[in-house]
Amino acid sequence: MRIARLATSLGPRYAVDDGERWRFVPSPFHSVPDHASGGVDYSDAQFLAPVEPRVVLGMAHNGSEADRAIEPQAFLKSARTVADPGAAVSIPGNGLTVLAEAELAIVIGSDAHNLNPDNAMAAVLGYVPANDVTAVDQIPLDSFWTQAKNGRNFTPIGPWIETEFDPSNAPLRLLVNGVLASESSTARLARGIVDILVYVTRHVVLGPGDIILTGCPGSNYSVGPGDEVTVEIPGLGALTNRIG
Amino acid sequence: MRIARLATSLGPRYAVDDGERWRFVPSPFHSVPDHASGGVDYSDAQFLAPVEPRVVLGMAHNGSEADRAIEPQAFLKSARTVADPGAAVSIPGNGLTVLAEAELAIVIGSDAHNLNPDNAMAAVLGYVPANDVTAVDQIPLDSFWTQAKNGRNFTPIGPWIETEFDPSNAPLRLLVNGVLASESSTARLARGIVDILVYVTRHVVLGPGDIILTGCPGSNYSVGPGDEVTVEIPGLGALTNRIG
Repeated sequence: MRIARLATSLGPRYAVDDGERWRFVPSPFHSVPDHASGGVDYSDAQFLAPVEPRVVLGMAHNGSEADRAIEPQAFLKSARTVADPGAAVSIPGNGLTVLAEAELAIVIGSDAHNLNPDNAMAAVLGYVPANDVTAVDQIPLDSFWTQAKNGRNFTPIGPWIETEFDPSNAPLRLLVNGVLASESSTARLARGIVDILVYVTRHVVLGPGDIILTGCPGSNYSVGPGDEVTVEIPGLGALTNRIG
Repeated sequence: MRIARLATSLGPRYAVDDGERWRFVPSPFHSVPDHASGGVDYSDAQFLAPVEPRVVLGMAHNGSEADRAIEPQAFLKSARTVADPGAAVSIPGNGLTVLAEAELAIVIGSDAHNLNPDNAMAAVLGYVPANDVTAVDQIPLDSFWTQAKNGRNFTPIGPWIETEFDPSNAPLRLLVNGVLASESSTARLARGIVDILVYVTRHVVLGPGDIILTGCPGSNYSVGPGDEVTVEIPGLGALTNRIG
């Protein structure tokens, strides 16, 4: 099932793809009933970030065989960095090098703390393409990566959440101005979805709507002002943003 | 002005201290009108965390003269760590050493990005006592401090936001089971409020309700299960939580 959050004249509304159009549904993250009826034609859908997380985490050094030898680590990103498909990513300061990073993001569907390998997958609502934008010049200046990871609109996600998806061997494509700039696969992640969930929830309490960026196995590229960047994950969708 | 968030039978409501009781008011963080009338007597007030931030930041190494010689740094905490006065702080795992840290927190009142020394203070709504709970054993294991800073209820704040307050030389007291365990002052912070705001907003986009923990100038103490911990800042109030 594809779950999107659409801009409407009544404000943001959740919708699912029913095969013919986007049909409005209650929020998948709250049991409170919503005004959920009707829908919009595919051609009229204006996609928003499909969720507004309270917590955004990214896996560090999770992109290669060598990373399996070191302990996992995760960094927090500001929830205000989450951006809609189409939103302009700001480059902070003059001449800074900004990397676009095509990543698979996990969308958490329930309260999740101290998950174990047997129950971890039950906490997953679905998956969404994400762009973990990084001001890479700041990495050596700040061991917390706060300075590198939190510019305006530095975490575009979308266009929708897919609930049926095999995350173990998904292509991760990064296109810059329509040209394939980088391609990799989630199969190259040092730690897969279950290991990530077990590690993260040992230390951080997660809840419905939170997201984890699973890491960048070489699926990145340096971008600059005016570039149009697309994260494409076959089976999930394509997320395009401008660099402002 | 003291701004609190109180538990009521209709859900959380904002209230101000009018000198005789807690009077309900619209949210100070949204222009959308609220149902704000009436109030509760002081003795009946049940304080919640006075704000639900989207972004929580803490200043690292900001607690001594020596820290002035190194570049400032800030770490992100999960917004889900924010806890009400009285809430039980969980100790993750057996025998972990947990530090309570008495800190002054800045409450942001408006959109705040790239502030400069002249306009920084206009972004401040007020101040609130905070306990920046830290699983200190995890610090050497994780350079991001994600593992150290994000246990359940690791950021108690309250009991209310004070909008008129001089943050430059405020005592920071930490009491454990009613006994003064540690005392310091915001005057010992390496960088004061303006410097913190200018630094943080150069890299992170903040908005109404976000908070910055300004740092711990020795106002900390090791605590364990069963301890009752109070952060007391004269002029602001006293925040008490149990260690669970």
